[in-house]
Amino acid sequence: MTALASRQVVRSTGLDALFAPRGVVVVGASGDPTKLGGAMAVALSAGERPVGLVNARGAAGTRTTVAEAAADVIDAGGVPDLAVLCVPAAACADAAAACAEAGVSALLVCSGGFGESGPEGAEHERRLLEVVRSTGLRLLGPNTSGYFVPGARLRASFVPDAAQVLPGHVAVVAASGGLNHALSFALQRSGEGVALGVGIGAGVDVTAADVLDHLAATAESGHGPVRTEASPGARSVALHLETVPDGPALLYAVHRVSRHLPVVALVVGENDIGGFAASHTGALATSWRTTRALLRQAGAVVVDREDDLLTAASALARGRLRPGDAGVGLVTAQAGPGLLVADALHRAGVSLPELSPTTRERLGELLPPMTYQANPVDTGRPGPQHRDVVAAVAADPAISAVGVYALAEPVVDLPRAIAEADLGGTVAVVGLDGTSGEVDRARAAGHAAGLPVAVGPGALATALTALVHDARAQAALHRDETPTAMLAAAEPAVVPVVEAGPWDEARAKDLLGQLGIATPPRRVCHSRSEAHAALADLAPLGDGGRVVVKVSDAAILHKSDVGGVHVGVRDGAGLDVALDALARLGDQPCLVEAMAAPGVDLVVGARRDPVFGPVVVLGAGGIATEVLADVAIAAADPALLTRAQLLALPDQLRTRALLDGHRGAPAVDREQLADVLAALAALLASNPALEEVEVNPLRATADGLLALDAVIVTTEAHRTTQTREDRA
Amino acid sequence: MTALASRQVVRSTGLDALFAPRGVVVVGASGDPTKLGGAMAVALSAGERPVGLVNARGAAGTRTTVAEAAADVIDAGGVPDLAVLCVPAAACADAAAACAEAGVSALLVCSGGFGESGPEGAEHERRLLEVVRSTGLRLLGPNTSGYFVPGARLRASFVPDAAQVLPGHVAVVAASGGLNHALSFALQRSGEGVALGVGIGAGVDVTAADVLDHLAATAESGHGPVRTEASPGARSVALHLETVPDGPALLYAVHRVSRHLPVVALVVGENDIGGFAASHTGALATSWRTTRALLRQAGAVVVDREDDLLTAASALARGRLRPGDAGVGLVTAQAGPGLLVADALHRAGVSLPELSPTTRERLGELLPPMTYQANPVDTGRPGPQHRDVVAAVAADPAISAVGVYALAEPVVDLPRAIAEADLGGTVAVVGLDGTSGEVDRARAAGHAAGLPVAVGPGALATALTALVHDARAQAALHRDETPTAMLAAAEPAVVPVVEAGPWDEARAKDLLGQLGIATPPRRVCHSRSEAHAALADLAPLGDGGRVVVKVSDAAILHKSDVGGVHVGVRDGAGLDVALDALARLGDQPCLVEAMAAPGVDLVVGARRDPVFGPVVVLGAGGIATEVLADVAIAAADPALLTRAQLLALPDQLRTRALLDGHRGAPAVDREQLADVLAALAALLASNPALEEVEVNPLRATADGLLALDAVIVTTEAHRTTQTREDRA
Repeated sequence: MTALASRQVVRSTGLDALFAPRGVVVVGASGDPTKLGGAMAVALSAGERPVGLVNARGAAGTRTTVAEAAADVIDAGGVPDLAVLCVPAAACADAAAACAEAGVSALLVCSGGFGESGPEGAEHERRLLEVVRSTGLRLLGPNTSGYFVPGARLRASFVPDAAQVLPGHVAVVAASGGLNHALSFALQRSGEGVALGVGIGAGVDVTAADVLDHLAATAESGHGPVRTEASPGARSVALHLETVPDGPALLYAVHRVSRHLPVVALVVGENDIGGFAASHTGALATSWRTTRALLRQAGAVVVDREDDLLTAASALARGRLRPGDAGVGLVTAQAGPGLLVADALHRAGVSLPELSPTTRERLGELLPPMTYQANPVDTGRPGPQHRDVVAAVAADPAISAVGVYALAEPVVDLPRAIAEADLGGTVAVVGLDGTSGEVDRARAAGHAAGLPVAVGPGALATALTALVHDARAQAALHRDETPTAMLAAAEPAVVPVVEAGPWDEARAKDLLGQLGIATPPRRVCHSRSEAHAALADLAPLGDGGRVVVKVSDAAILHKSDVGGVHVGVRDGAGLDVALDALARLGDQPCLVEAMAAPGVDLVVGARRDPVFGPVVVLGAGGIATEVLADVAIAAADPALLTRAQLLALPDQLRTRALLDGHRGAPAVDREQLADVLAALAALLASNPALEEVEVNPLRATADGLLALDAVIVTTEAHRTTQTREDRA
Repeated sequence: MTALASRQVVRSTGLDALFAPRGVVVVGASGDPTKLGGAMAVALSAGERPVGLVNARGAAGTRTTVAEAAADVIDAGGVPDLAVLCVPAAACADAAAACAEAGVSALLVCSGGFGESGPEGAEHERRLLEVVRSTGLRLLGPNTSGYFVPGARLRASFVPDAAQVLPGHVAVVAASGGLNHALSFALQRSGEGVALGVGIGAGVDVTAADVLDHLAATAESGHGPVRTEASPGARSVALHLETVPDGPALLYAVHRVSRHLPVVALVVGENDIGGFAASHTGALATSWRTTRALLRQAGAVVVDREDDLLTAASALARGRLRPGDAGVGLVTAQAGPGLLVADALHRAGVSLPELSPTTRERLGELLPPMTYQANPVDTGRPGPQHRDVVAAVAADPAISAVGVYALAEPVVDLPRAIAEADLGGTVAVVGLDGTSGEVDRARAAGHAAGLPVAVGPGALATALTALVHDARAQAALHRDETPTAMLAAAEPAVVPVVEAGPWDEARAKDLLGQLGIATPPRRVCHSRSEAHAALADLAPLGDGGRVVVKVSDAAILHKSDVGGVHVGVRDGAGLDVALDALARLGDQPCLVEAMAAPGVDLVVGARRDPVFGPVVVLGAGGIATEVLADVAIAAADPALLTRAQLLALPDQLRTRALLDGHRGAPAVDREQLADVLAALAALLASNPALEEVEVNPLRATADGLLALDAVIVTTEAHRTTQTREDRA
């Protein structure tokens, strides 16, 4: 069993007690609904499962001990799986222990006063976690307003209006209770409802990754989170993230669940919001860009705003495309909104392919001559033939999804027209605008027919984009299933062992050579005569008969900045000028190297991200990486990274035009680039003491990729160990 | 009177008949409400003004001539100001003539079949326009579903649901009738309503600029478009643009109206959508980026999506800030949504300034200790003290607008708390989420109290951003009122006259010198001996005692590409190598120039945009402009361009970090850069035959800006004329 597989098995257990409890105990229950213990007692008693109430002072209808309340639940035919603790932080550890003893498996703790509040609270948290760890209890919270499973009439939230959130198909997994409620209320407003709504809060035990694993396990077992007539279970996930406590766990969970349920993710923290973020989340630990790129790689659709999160999750809950590169057809009854949708789709990199001659011929039969019959199709106000127009576009071989926009009017029944159309395997998304009454009516009709419905041109574009991005991500993830297939082309017979530093340029390049990465012919020279001999041998191999002369010293990181690099040396006189200059830097050896042909300079590397572990990175050189931070990144974990993803990595770059043959420069060979990145990933994976390997620049010449400089960084520990061994 | 002022007077006339008609004639009226003439008759008869119906076949209740119908309107106490033509395109010109004769001043034509449909339709359009031009009629359309002024019960739209759009404060000016209805319906759904909703359609006469001018004129006269009790008139404009027939007219109109009513603009056409766009709009004529940048300069807030357009226009209709750089305070009851808002505000360049010690002390008195009392303020669920918390933040001198977010619950009355708070001159925006019932209730309460209300964290951020961007744009526009103040610092005593070409580098640099723009010491040399003499004189003035030697030939545009530039020449031997190389290009003279010190290379220029006229442009050199198209642009028209805008121009650049002292390079002197741009603008303004002047590179050195190369392009006509004169 691989590490990944064993992890998944362990992590998928224990949350049934939280999300499908057979009975509930409320500890600290109160008769006052304005208090936490009162609000929770009211919210939970509205469900169908037995509820036992505990109040140390024995208020009316309550028991003074957890054991007694648990017995009440059992007497009522239930099992006290879940306990909701509404007692002060200081009392939580003892209450948790009593719960565990009474047979409880899961806890919800909403209140604050734990780690975020200072040393005393940290001690409460430590004691609570000790109980959790020793008993096997699972704990949601603290610091959350709770969660709900409307289809199971389970509402463990102290917000009274949570009772109005109806069953639906979207699972909301939010970093905070506030966001969970905000998103779930928004889904209620849009007539969508939720399958499951969770606010992770402090996440000291149950994390977003755990909830995703639970959803995956439920999907794999063929059941929704709680499958009842009212709730056919989650069909998509709206994920909101603020901080990532365990990067690989999150990626594995997204990877696992996204195979069954599309995942849409909103990541907060593009900007440094200083103390406020820290006060709320502990830390926005890693780079926002890294988190987003790696979530995409793991199979999530990443969005920028919370309204897009809901639009995308709602659309994906009703219409998921087969994995692949999907083309979108657009049928619009009004040209202006259609133009907005088309513009937004182009911006998102979604293609509106040309329709086949057969399709256009069919459209010509169906539509009057003055309509626009390409893609988008502009029909004018929908008439009886609209059903057939949509079917004609859906039947086009280039089309996987059709967006159909019209103003909703009493005379136009768009959802019915689409529901009646023969779409084959093509997914249709309804886009509409209209008065509130018309929109509500048309949306309900569309949902009843199982159609995704988006209100407004922007939302229609967002929905279609989400469908296409999801299909692409799944294709890139699952095109080649063998985890290490990515390495096949480039993996050297034996991945070299990275010794301790220091690593000067020549040594680093030798290592790249062992990985199969090309480097220029070179020689380290310890004297002027060696350098002149090297010039004679290497200049004929260099571009224009020239060499580059560089200082060779692992301690000098930025050789150019100190005048340690002399390019274009073609003769003895020039070499002497260069050597004189290098002599001013000290008496290090020099590196004489055949000068590379011109080309496009890239930066590639592999390093260990503090949150996500091994990653590979790619950027265009110069200001693209330095000023614009325009860097593509992917998790290097062989369980996640596929060759398809490596081949697509340049597409993440805003400056990708530089790689595609800019102004007559050679285009970068993507297959060879994928080989280089895979080799660097393999090097990192095989060498725990290797912190980072960076090739800067990796030059794309007409003859292929050539590493012109390289830096190897090993861990301090590795260096120290080696130094000790050296001394021994 | 300046050209601008005279233009404004002319353009502000004639639309009262369209938007405030005292009576209406429907030509081609029908008894069948599914037909255009029937739908229009129904829609217009629902208003309060007399309506005369014309039908050539004399259907029930109609007259057979326009004159008779007009007489009916007069008999009923009205004036037939407006005629709605519901007849085929071929019949429109004659109908228009009859209308003009009967005293009509404005026409609405909804149908197609004109210029877009081929030569026959173009002839119908030509004839219709001939009548319009000769009679002074104003014409809205063709190819639009119409317009409405709900507060005046005027609904000239064939979409029946338009009757449900309620009076409000936002004026919708959309490129197409479809968008006008989509946007207006969305405003209806959000409880906002519209003051005026117009779809421009083909725009053969009345354009978006005309409608903006009309709104400006109405605002200047102290009246809303139609000021009734139900409609206090427009307080903001939601502008949707697809194509710009007259760039300067649009900019002048935005400039004029935005002083009175904030303008939010959505521009379609970021991407080339090919035939579809052309079929719909004729042409997306100019660059999307240029249009957006110049609209911002003219005073508009530019947004990316249609939902943001409405959120921003709705917020600005209720709370406009004083011009200036505004700080935002954020008070949130839930940290998670607050974090989303703060992240989005940072992304949009909106600052959340630190609160003063006084404010923080006051918050300390009001809030429990565990709350977060900086900016954002995280209060926990709103209580009785919420009013005072909001007032405390509003009173902070750094704060111009306060966003207040909370989940709407029955126990929380956020709008009332804010309405009761003493905000001084600070604008508060309410942000909320909740069930549909709670949101509707709280939004209505907020609107009743005159507060902007945004639903969701994203919308709250959009609303606050719009307020801040509007205040900044107005400040940059009106900080210095003298139109030519921008030129004061740099304007040369006399702006030089640009003679006909050809313009080689030396001549172009001489011209820059006359404009006060620094260039390196240089000499044009016609022989080797002249070049050696120049080396001796100029090398001591160059960086490192070096000169640059270049081919001097106006016909060679890319000197570097052909080996025509030799840098770093320090001695006679080096000069001879350079001259030998140049000799291979022909026997042109050469330019010997003192070599410039290193620095940051910029590209600046002034040119004539085909749509907007004179513009100045700025970019960082290299891939920033070439690959990323990262170019800042502003209209150079002295009636629009202010020095404040020139000083802020670098802020448009994504690569602006390069200008601010990147990696130890000198920072660009923005005042001096503004001088250079102003001088180039003045040069273009004074020389109608000058097409373009580009300085590339303009190097920012430690000693200031230095023009290293320049290209001057004059019109062919200019060149031809001059050539003839030369020959004479």
